[in-house]
Amino acid sequence: MSNKQYCVIMAGGIGARFWPRSRQSMPKQFLDILGTGKSFIRHTYERFAKLIPAENFLVVTNRKYKKLVLKHIPELNENQVLCEPIGRNTAPCIAYAAYLLQKQNPEAEMVVTPADHLILGEEEFRTIISECMEFAAKSGSLVTVGIKPTRPDTGYGYIQVSDDQLLSKVKCFTEKPNLELAQTFIQCGEFFWNSGIFVWSVKAIIEAFAKYLPEHHALFSDLQPALGTEAEEMAVEKVFAECRAISIDYGVMEKADNVYVRCGEFGWSDVGTWGSVYQHSRKDRYANAVPAEGCYLYDTRSSIVQLPKDKIAVISGLKEYIVVDTEDVLMICPRSEEQSIKKFIDEVKFHNGEKHI
Amino acid sequence: MSNKQYCVIMAGGIGARFWPRSRQSMPKQFLDILGTGKSFIRHTYERFAKLIPAENFLVVTNRKYKKLVLKHIPELNENQVLCEPIGRNTAPCIAYAAYLLQKQNPEAEMVVTPADHLILGEEEFRTIISECMEFAAKSGSLVTVGIKPTRPDTGYGYIQVSDDQLLSKVKCFTEKPNLELAQTFIQCGEFFWNSGIFVWSVKAIIEAFAKYLPEHHALFSDLQPALGTEAEEMAVEKVFAECRAISIDYGVMEKADNVYVRCGEFGWSDVGTWGSVYQHSRKDRYANAVPAEGCYLYDTRSSIVQLPKDKIAVISGLKEYIVVDTEDVLMICPRSEEQSIKKFIDEVKFHNGEKHI
Repeated sequence: MSNKQYCVIMAGGIGARFWPRSRQSMPKQFLDILGTGKSFIRHTYERFAKLIPAENFLVVTNRKYKKLVLKHIPELNENQVLCEPIGRNTAPCIAYAAYLLQKQNPEAEMVVTPADHLILGEEEFRTIISECMEFAAKSGSLVTVGIKPTRPDTGYGYIQVSDDQLLSKVKCFTEKPNLELAQTFIQCGEFFWNSGIFVWSVKAIIEAFAKYLPEHHALFSDLQPALGTEAEEMAVEKVFAECRAISIDYGVMEKADNVYVRCGEFGWSDVGTWGSVYQHSRKDRYANAVPAEGCYLYDTRSSIVQLPKDKIAVISGLKEYIVVDTEDVLMICPRSEEQSIKKFIDEVKFHNGEKHI
Repeated sequence: MSNKQYCVIMAGGIGARFWPRSRQSMPKQFLDILGTGKSFIRHTYERFAKLIPAENFLVVTNRKYKKLVLKHIPELNENQVLCEPIGRNTAPCIAYAAYLLQKQNPEAEMVVTPADHLILGEEEFRTIISECMEFAAKSGSLVTVGIKPTRPDTGYGYIQVSDDQLLSKVKCFTEKPNLELAQTFIQCGEFFWNSGIFVWSVKAIIEAFAKYLPEHHALFSDLQPALGTEAEEMAVEKVFAECRAISIDYGVMEKADNVYVRCGEFGWSDVGTWGSVYQHSRKDRYANAVPAEGCYLYDTRSSIVQLPKDKIAVISGLKEYIVVDTEDVLMICPRSEEQSIKKFIDEVKFHNGEKHI
């Protein structure tokens, strides 16, 4: 393990798509929606802890999740959890970590990862990350990890490569194409899913901020002296209030000319929807993804059921449904309606306030 | 109010048909399944308390429900709750009360009522009960209350009358006819539903026991000296272990020749199924019977939803379903499948023991 290598876990999401399992007080990254025995953020930590020493992790999250982060990753010190006062998308989140690291160690190399993805082939994944770190350090480029697509998913960003090397210069980014375009991408073979996992040196990413997001560069450069001091919290509050919300993809990656993608296949999913949870869950012989115990199903097929611990369910006559029961909210909806969850949340919030959100 | 008049509430049922709302530890009679603000047994007590003084009530129940009875009817003394060690159907239950009353007051007149029925026209009902009591006292006959049937229900017992008087001699009892027969009964006009509400003098019912259920008569006559003494509990235990389970309808009413029925219409239901709860509940404009608050329905019709207090539900895409959520059990099933609930209970019991039953 190298002392120059750092892992930045982005853990600020509120995970509304898994409501009512995920809540504002308990977003997806802290849940074990797939029933693996560990939360997403714990898996993410352990995945990288074999490459990077514990003291070189940073987690960027909303300040209200600081305690949760430390509970799920007790290996971290409090000062390794960077608290955003407000979510401003990935560019400010990454900037916060990068400008802090620059101050601590100008030679730092960083891998940036979402906290809530599923990766099945961890060994293969780590091999790829190590390659990326080596390449990024040597070349000073910005490296992103691309996933060989398995279906014309319209919810992902796509990266077009310029050659057929595993580590290839990026030709183009396309955010959430329509189905026709996604199908063309798949057939063409030059397109990969954007995993949102990035590798670069602190030097390279800060140069990119300076060039492509000069406002952010100015704000975070001004912030830098306060970082790690008692003035940090108030200074961060001010910067996040002022800075524009923008994704690192849109703000930097799509514009920079030194972006490379390392393509791989390692059983990746962002587990962004109940459909994806269904896909990655073990199913019974009627294709139901249900808890191992306590679920009594009759004439029920292709459904997903999630229950609180020790609760049992008797379910008859549901085909392709999502049933999510929690202590204070029950949701029953067809799998084809999962995109309505945000509408459900809005309506509940309108009538009932934040209590159940 | 007459000091000779007593009300015996039969409250031993375990109400499996309303599982998971009703439980072995909390049967239907102690629940407010219709959301009226009071339990069935409380309504039953209040219904008769306008005719009969509190000290003249007896409640016969399983011993495990004694505390619940006293909680729901705090007007009663402990010795007014007669505890069955085991359910033996209605004849032993009634015998227990009748032989006790005979000892306390040989002139006693009694009305016997289930604890868990719905009666909407309470004034009309009380008028009828008063008439029955007067007639039973005067004539020494056994009087049952018949309900003008509104549909060819195959779950009820039917009573055929011998003339078109309101208070008529009974010609015949028919337990749970098939649909064809039930339809014929309705068309014929001579048939009424057996409400399970009876009025008679203690003298008359004990004479009937002696004549038609001599074994029971012998057992309960032997028991009588122990009633109201410290020996009661053990003696009752022995009698219930020995005596045959049999309904008062089958054991006495169908055989006796002095049985009369007082027919009436007073908005009666035994609320014996979720279908009946649905029928008696207020519905929204899509014919859903749901809690007044906390239920967010989309594309959902003709369904019944019951939730724990303060819980909310978001339900999409259900037509004619029963959704019953409790703290530790969730049940979702088509309304047409409500007769499967006993099967559900058996299966849960087999796999999980009594914990959720």
